[in-house]
Amino acid sequence: MDSARNETRIFRGIEASAGIAIGTARLTDRSRVAVTEVSIGDEEVELECARFLAALQDAREELLAVKEHLASSRGPEHLYVVDSHLLILEDGMLTRGTLDLIAGEKINAEAALKRNLLKFKEFFSAIEDEYLRERAGDVETVVERIMRAMVGKRQECIGSIDGGKIVIVAHDLSPTDILQIDKNNVIGFITDLGGRTSHTAILARALEIPAVVGLETITGEDIDGLPIIIDGTDGTVVVNPDQDTFRDYLRRKQRYDYLEQEFLKLRDLPAETIDGHRISLMGNIEFAEEIPTLKGHGGEGIGLYRTEMLYMNRQGLPDEEEQYLAYSAIVEAMAPLPITIRTLDVGGDKLATDLHLEDEMNPALGLRAIRLSLRKPEVFKTQLRAILRASVRGKVRIFFPMISGVEEVRAAKAILEEAKNELRAEGVPFDNAIDVGIMIEIPSAVLVADILAREVDFFSVGTNDLIQYSLAIDRTNEHLAHLYQPMHPAVLRSLRTVVDAAHAAGIRACMCGEVAGESRYLPILLGLGFDELSMTGVSIPRVKKVLRRAVKADAQLLVSRAFTFSTAAEVEAFLNSEISARFSESFD
Amino acid sequence: MDSARNETRIFRGIEASAGIAIGTARLTDRSRVAVTEVSIGDEEVELECARFLAALQDAREELLAVKEHLASSRGPEHLYVVDSHLLILEDGMLTRGTLDLIAGEKINAEAALKRNLLKFKEFFSAIEDEYLRERAGDVETVVERIMRAMVGKRQECIGSIDGGKIVIVAHDLSPTDILQIDKNNVIGFITDLGGRTSHTAILARALEIPAVVGLETITGEDIDGLPIIIDGTDGTVVVNPDQDTFRDYLRRKQRYDYLEQEFLKLRDLPAETIDGHRISLMGNIEFAEEIPTLKGHGGEGIGLYRTEMLYMNRQGLPDEEEQYLAYSAIVEAMAPLPITIRTLDVGGDKLATDLHLEDEMNPALGLRAIRLSLRKPEVFKTQLRAILRASVRGKVRIFFPMISGVEEVRAAKAILEEAKNELRAEGVPFDNAIDVGIMIEIPSAVLVADILAREVDFFSVGTNDLIQYSLAIDRTNEHLAHLYQPMHPAVLRSLRTVVDAAHAAGIRACMCGEVAGESRYLPILLGLGFDELSMTGVSIPRVKKVLRRAVKADAQLLVSRAFTFSTAAEVEAFLNSEISARFSESFD
Repeated sequence: MDSARNETRIFRGIEASAGIAIGTARLTDRSRVAVTEVSIGDEEVELECARFLAALQDAREELLAVKEHLASSRGPEHLYVVDSHLLILEDGMLTRGTLDLIAGEKINAEAALKRNLLKFKEFFSAIEDEYLRERAGDVETVVERIMRAMVGKRQECIGSIDGGKIVIVAHDLSPTDILQIDKNNVIGFITDLGGRTSHTAILARALEIPAVVGLETITGEDIDGLPIIIDGTDGTVVVNPDQDTFRDYLRRKQRYDYLEQEFLKLRDLPAETIDGHRISLMGNIEFAEEIPTLKGHGGEGIGLYRTEMLYMNRQGLPDEEEQYLAYSAIVEAMAPLPITIRTLDVGGDKLATDLHLEDEMNPALGLRAIRLSLRKPEVFKTQLRAILRASVRGKVRIFFPMISGVEEVRAAKAILEEAKNELRAEGVPFDNAIDVGIMIEIPSAVLVADILAREVDFFSVGTNDLIQYSLAIDRTNEHLAHLYQPMHPAVLRSLRTVVDAAHAAGIRACMCGEVAGESRYLPILLGLGFDELSMTGVSIPRVKKVLRRAVKADAQLLVSRAFTFSTAAEVEAFLNSEISARFSESFD
Repeated sequence: MDSARNETRIFRGIEASAGIAIGTARLTDRSRVAVTEVSIGDEEVELECARFLAALQDAREELLAVKEHLASSRGPEHLYVVDSHLLILEDGMLTRGTLDLIAGEKINAEAALKRNLLKFKEFFSAIEDEYLRERAGDVETVVERIMRAMVGKRQECIGSIDGGKIVIVAHDLSPTDILQIDKNNVIGFITDLGGRTSHTAILARALEIPAVVGLETITGEDIDGLPIIIDGTDGTVVVNPDQDTFRDYLRRKQRYDYLEQEFLKLRDLPAETIDGHRISLMGNIEFAEEIPTLKGHGGEGIGLYRTEMLYMNRQGLPDEEEQYLAYSAIVEAMAPLPITIRTLDVGGDKLATDLHLEDEMNPALGLRAIRLSLRKPEVFKTQLRAILRASVRGKVRIFFPMISGVEEVRAAKAILEEAKNELRAEGVPFDNAIDVGIMIEIPSAVLVADILAREVDFFSVGTNDLIQYSLAIDRTNEHLAHLYQPMHPAVLRSLRTVVDAAHAAGIRACMCGEVAGESRYLPILLGLGFDELSMTGVSIPRVKKVLRRAVKADAQLLVSRAFTFSTAAEVEAFLNSEISARFSESFD
């Protein structure tokens, strides 16, 4: 072991939050409680149930204490993550399910809880949507907390870690943990579990804490207390770097920090080409916490505000008032800049209430997004009323996810009209001229874009799903990574079809998928004619820098050349040579 | 209960095999063995393991007896279904997994086997592909057999049922059961489990035994011995029909049988329009057993021969010789008519060997079909060599599934060239001019159809997947049934793009999805210009009848009118009025 402790070791994980951190590894004591299943007699059932309920209560008290600590240290706006954990504690499936297992299977409380967790995990693992699948982590974190309460171990409080330049090494971290991080002491974290779209990763990016996740077994490595470098940009972790590596990363870090500063200088410059063509550069956000970062990076508004969080990890649905307050807060925080609110984009199984876990075991490609909203028009109208009411607090636009044809657009607009009429009758003010748009993320929507364009004020292309459905690949599948090709001729043709259909109908062509935030694709998107690109806030300066060195006519020429190729590889090779020649300074 | 036995009761299931059967319900004793989990002591582990192994041996002997019976009654060509069950018995996951559970969990053998089955079922239920998902039924049937051997109950032999006009009512039936059916005694069957694409349903259609499956709880109803009517065309089951219903179904049955006879008269007439335009009407098959039905219905060849069965439910991969013999048998049975062989179209998790269940828990949208073949070029080349060798035994064409872009076509063709070169070097004869085609079933393939057309001799549109991916819906999800729209304007435009691209390049445009077999869509497919339609054998006469009443120029006019609509509902309404006016006789 000693020799291993001296060796340089390199691990590759998933890049969760950009930036380089150089410091000392600190393994937090968050390993799972080992659980042994023990058969119990009838007379012990009551005792085990009582032990479980006491642990539930302890966990609740711990969470309430965390909440109080957070409220005083960070203010009220972060408390929902703790609330969502408190709500999981109250979930009947968790409580009753475990009690039933103790009594029915005659096993000890720890084993019953563990079996119950497996049911939750199975349920979540069957979900295709990466974003939703990772919500399983929240349940797991809560169960772990109960488990620890049961065996008497308490969790180490992330907020109390000190020592400076600490890189936390953990099996998993919850959003609550991230919010407790004191950036004076902790400079980054790495975990066994997690993915790019977990709440933990989203918060880490919002708070600009470098992070690598999904390292699988990093907590099993003997690295506590060792020098460590993590690169949240490419997912690399180096333990015990040798001198050359250390110097190399130090240079990279300085360069990264320098470039960040340079990019930030672009914040107040216009997003326009040399020849004066403007593209609106907007942000994709999910949490109010992301707004300062977005504004700090020069975002001209919000091109995609995801409303799913309001509906998830809770009992019952959010009522109109609660939604109105949530939307208003974001609208006002951005005003007078526009905020584009996407209506609910989840599956029916996620409409909490009491989770309905038994009812739907295979909901993934199913009844979701606008399909769900149209099946539950009252739920949909409640959201639309809340958005309309918030529309007078600033500049609001609204759009519908997962549109596959014109019938859905017409049906959604009819319900929007109903909501408007109701508000009018009630004398409630709203922006009567509110812009209405749709996501273009399903191949059929591309193919009938000309028909759809007559019905709305803007298109917003969701490249992630569009590429996925167009090429019929699961992008989270590592074996298919080579097939996930944003520059596939079919994708390029789709983008051109969408932009041309939009402009022919005199409406705006926007994009809010990940391709929009990749600066190397900017010349293509400019040449195709996109009017607005929405991306994660920290990407805006890089994209703006490329845009400000571009000339519209050149980009159009580039696009027409790109369309002569038969494969994505040829297009990418062409882009690499062309763009590096023209924009080399931007890609330093 | 007595009153229920006199009442007329109607149940709705899944139509698995067309035709009406009127007879007496016979509940076969195939209900599941109830299993109680019992904790055992260390000293009992050995005993339980021995009980399990003895039951395995009993099940094996039973299956061997069934196989012998089948070999003498039906000849050698049906034995593979029994073989696949014998192979499941040998699956290490099943044996070792159960033994491990007995020893590790200290539970009785029945409970261990049941838990192990749950693991298999979970694994299979996570699979998206309906076809593959239903392979779980094979494992379940085998486990049931072991379970019965363990508790000493033997299965009722389907082959020994007599009494005439019996409709079997069962929890589930295996392909082996279907092959044992004596049509002099048994006129149809209904089951709790099953779907349209299970092997049981495919065999029932091939053997023309009416069947309704997926009735969920029909074996729980008190219907044994009662008069029963099943309509395998629409999934209706009527128990205790009243006189009017009985007469009504008797008329329908006579009509159905009459129309079948009428349609069969078309068998030897050419598949051409009034103005002499021909379309080749071919069959989709999977089993050699389907060939007599296909020929009997006037199939002009096989437009889709699925090769998956050769690879599944077995230990190890089929070698070249085994494949060569299988392909040759089908090619010779059809010669001189053409047979179009599709290369392997399954996921990597299905490449049996020892099932690798632990390794891939989420393979559905993943590495499958041509993607898998290109990742396993040796496996792919073995199949290509076998097909090439069989190509001299008749007329063979070859095509690749799940093509998303031109790189995959070129890579597949390169391996085909290698296979040809090897055979040439070995002096083995093959059809050097063998036609090579691709499935068009992914939206990106539609969008680059012009590029793809330069590389191949024909396109074959797979409408099921194409509609699914284009509209981003899971067609097996009942909530989304209304969104599965073959006449969606996006689908129509896709079909036009594909046919036009094919003809511009001088290659054939074929279709092998379910749309091809729906006679009401024939005028659209004719108008679009499809050269060849491949469908389940029994659909050919109906399609041919419509074709023989059509005029090509009228169909083209119909298509141009259909393209003026914005929604699938409008197109369908238009088709209903137009086609019923012109072809009403065909839709009696």
